[in-house]
Amino acid sequence: MKPHPDHKELENLLPYIRKLQELADRHGIRDIFQDNGGKLLQIALATGLTILKKREGNDARDETGREYELKSVNAALTQSFSTHHHLNPTILEKYRKVGWVFAIYEAIELKTIYYMPPDKLEPYFSAWEQKWHNSGGKDINNPKIPLVFVVGHGELVWGTQFDVRENRARYRVRRRDV
Amino acid sequence: MKPHPDHKELENLLPYIRKLQELADRHGIRDIFQDNGGKLLQIALATGLTILKKREGNDARDETGREYELKSVNAALTQSFSTHHHLNPTILEKYRKVGWVFAIYEAIELKTIYYMPPDKLEPYFSAWEQKWHNSGGKDINNPKIPLVFVVGHGELVWGTQFDVRENRARYRVRRRDV
Repeated sequence: MKPHPDHKELENLLPYIRKLQELADRHGIRDIFQDNGGKLLQIALATGLTILKKREGNDARDETGREYELKSVNAALTQSFSTHHHLNPTILEKYRKVGWVFAIYEAIELKTIYYMPPDKLEPYFSAWEQKWHNSGGKDINNPKIPLVFVVGHGELVWGTQFDVRENRARYRVRRRDV
Repeated sequence: MKPHPDHKELENLLPYIRKLQELADRHGIRDIFQDNGGKLLQIALATGLTILKKREGNDARDETGREYELKSVNAALTQSFSTHHHLNPTILEKYRKVGWVFAIYEAIELKTIYYMPPDKLEPYFSAWEQKWHNSGGKDINNPKIPLVFVVGHGELVWGTQFDVRENRARYRVRRRDV
């Protein structure tokens, strides 16, 4: 095994990657390359929110102590936000208490951030709760919140309004290429 | 919500992050911030191996077509390499055919890479196989390969010999701080 010629290019970038990790360390993110660390850093810096180190991950708090659920999506690949792999009434109880921050990426590029108070998401929460009860209490595997709903009902807090139609058109072209 | 003062610093680093992602794209890694993408890129460039896009992830191939299992560890946090969350004889059959590349990181810094042919790992493979049969065919949840075994028996292919004792001492200090 011997290094690829491109290794030189990586070496030239390493000082900047280290600086990015130092910046991340100052914001409680220990590894930019794991669990969307580099993206969480971008969201924290764009919103001024403090990232909380919880096992369930992706949560944040503002200076008043209010907690937020952070969700991100790569709009080049996916048209909806993931929620939780074992959604149940306990998780829903938490979801109804926190603010929601939705970050839209194209690949690693942060495009837009929307905020939604939990009552705006209540139609989804109620539907999931109903589904859970109807199934006799089976956890729901990762119900989704559509990108188009967030763009249509969220409050823009960073970037410019995301163009869902234009993104969809590009997304379709890309899918066809696969 | 308003941007954190550090956002400026992130903006200054963005051109270099984009370059890193472009480099990653050229090596089949679509997102440096997910699934250890940035680290896989470093391993690919340091070894000259080609990353394969498999669902099981972290596999690579050399120019002769030989396949490799890539494992990485953050030695600041963990003293062993993870393997597979549902290890069983099918996975073991694959494990016995491929070369093994072990990358040792401290946080995001690649320190050392070792190579091991599968026969060197046979004591582990046999023990896991025995355990699987003894349990009546229950998948094993992520059996580990100790860092100290890899450093003691692997062939150095990148970086300098990793000092397990010195790392352990530092690791203990850090654990005490937590």
